[in-house]
Amino acid sequence: MSLLVIGSVAFDAIETPFGKTDKIIGGAATYISMASSYLTKDINLVAVVGDDFPSEHIQLLQRMGVDTEGLQIKNGEKSFFWSGRYSNDMNSRDTLVTELNVLGSFDPIIPDNYQNCEYLMLGNLSPQVQISVIERLKNKPKLIAMDTMNFWMDVAMDDLSKALKLVDILIINDEEARQLSGEYSLKKASKIIRNMGPRYLIIKKGEHGALLFYDEQVFFAPALPLEEVFDPTGAGDTFAGGFIGYLASTGKVDFENMKRAIIYGSALASFCVEKFGTERLIGLKEEEINVRLKEFVGLSSVELNLD
Amino acid sequence: MSLLVIGSVAFDAIETPFGKTDKIIGGAATYISMASSYLTKDINLVAVVGDDFPSEHIQLLQRMGVDTEGLQIKNGEKSFFWSGRYSNDMNSRDTLVTELNVLGSFDPIIPDNYQNCEYLMLGNLSPQVQISVIERLKNKPKLIAMDTMNFWMDVAMDDLSKALKLVDILIINDEEARQLSGEYSLKKASKIIRNMGPRYLIIKKGEHGALLFYDEQVFFAPALPLEEVFDPTGAGDTFAGGFIGYLASTGKVDFENMKRAIIYGSALASFCVEKFGTERLIGLKEEEINVRLKEFVGLSSVELNLD
Repeated sequence: MSLLVIGSVAFDAIETPFGKTDKIIGGAATYISMASSYLTKDINLVAVVGDDFPSEHIQLLQRMGVDTEGLQIKNGEKSFFWSGRYSNDMNSRDTLVTELNVLGSFDPIIPDNYQNCEYLMLGNLSPQVQISVIERLKNKPKLIAMDTMNFWMDVAMDDLSKALKLVDILIINDEEARQLSGEYSLKKASKIIRNMGPRYLIIKKGEHGALLFYDEQVFFAPALPLEEVFDPTGAGDTFAGGFIGYLASTGKVDFENMKRAIIYGSALASFCVEKFGTERLIGLKEEEINVRLKEFVGLSSVELNLD
Repeated sequence: MSLLVIGSVAFDAIETPFGKTDKIIGGAATYISMASSYLTKDINLVAVVGDDFPSEHIQLLQRMGVDTEGLQIKNGEKSFFWSGRYSNDMNSRDTLVTELNVLGSFDPIIPDNYQNCEYLMLGNLSPQVQISVIERLKNKPKLIAMDTMNFWMDVAMDDLSKALKLVDILIINDEEARQLSGEYSLKKASKIIRNMGPRYLIIKKGEHGALLFYDEQVFFAPALPLEEVFDPTGAGDTFAGGFIGYLASTGKVDFENMKRAIIYGSALASFCVEKFGTERLIGLKEEEINVRLKEFVGLSSVELNLD
């Protein structure tokens, strides 16, 4: 079923203990689209870049099955640019540069062809833009998932509250969940956040896995212990892309299927961190994805003989 | 099969955001013995207390099935005392008081009745004492598990290295694993530590679960997301007690059975943190343990349809 992806398509420059990159392709919608392309078809992208954005990157997305009719190219303007440096343990990062450029005035236009999308993934953007997208869709999608970040809680909490009322799933990390709820306990936080709107909440915990909360149910997805995290950039968006891509491909929205979707998201994210930027997300083979999925399922599989 | 438990039996005074206690019963061997008592019989304790230690606490351990012949009571001396205060998020704690007292000169004596123990759990103590216990056993137990802490890495690393060569499983937390190995990546750390002696390594990650490493295999055990951690004191020892108690009761030492043992340890630890000290570990019912075990298994259970 069709998937609509909204988010940044951008340049990143990344420094990790393993090296640094020049400007490379990045942005939430890039990672989401690429990850979902391994699981589903009919992926539609709404985003904005400047005329400095290389056409070969757009063609790469197209070859991966992403429809780019909704990707606006602004003449005479520059693409969003982010630069960051990771700490030695990769557990924190400093932002060195943020140039909003075209993203500062982003007015998302939904092509007619995209109007009947059934799954909507709102990558991290200003809540106002996320709301506009939902309002501009003539039919409510079967499922709306959304990402956000601390910055919007600080500067646009009113808009964020409105956006939260319109979505089915929120996908954020543990630090964001704690800030949004004002609660340290993630279980308490999950109740508070779900009272703000989304029925489902996914809390990503990086190397500690992810939690899915729905009703009174909880699912704890493991993360694969890795020898080396080469570059964590985009891992969260890759997770979201794998998650929503799996849901869109199977067409079932329920707790059990979301558990499976989280394993797909986790597996794709585990590839993402193995190289810089999107490098490892290009040309992945079905066989290697299946091997990784089996590793994830095996990681926490245990049977007890209880009455 | 018989289990020998060595460790501190002590007084604790605890402050958490939820309140504070006077001197209550504590110590690694107390938690380990109590937790294992729900899973196995023939538990033998080697420890030392002063004559200030209330006999009703010793009788309580006996009623729970713990043989206390190896518990030395030193006349005219005082029991080990630890006092600590937890931070508001319960993620760190400050030690307010450590009075070694009888523990400073602890010379572990193994009663003849304990000589044929098959499972040995060395709670956190000076590595020299842990080594003495192993040397004083006439027959090598089927399985030796050991806990330690950062302090011994700082002040007694040579002895700790010797102890590590004598044990089958090391059970430590993530911070300790990183210090012991000098590696941030837990997967890399696990290889380095297992090269120091233990074939099996369990890394406890608190609210993030636990990892078991053996050979090329990894198991990721989830932790139950809790609304409230009332008092984390003893949770790690309770985990160790549940783990070794399950192994002793089943008599099988292999990776699959250790996975199950970790779930038992995790389930018992999840009770421990619900009240102050050992309070919640007294009078647990089989039925509530089984319910909790099923929650743990359900928490990470997922099935994918892969070829």
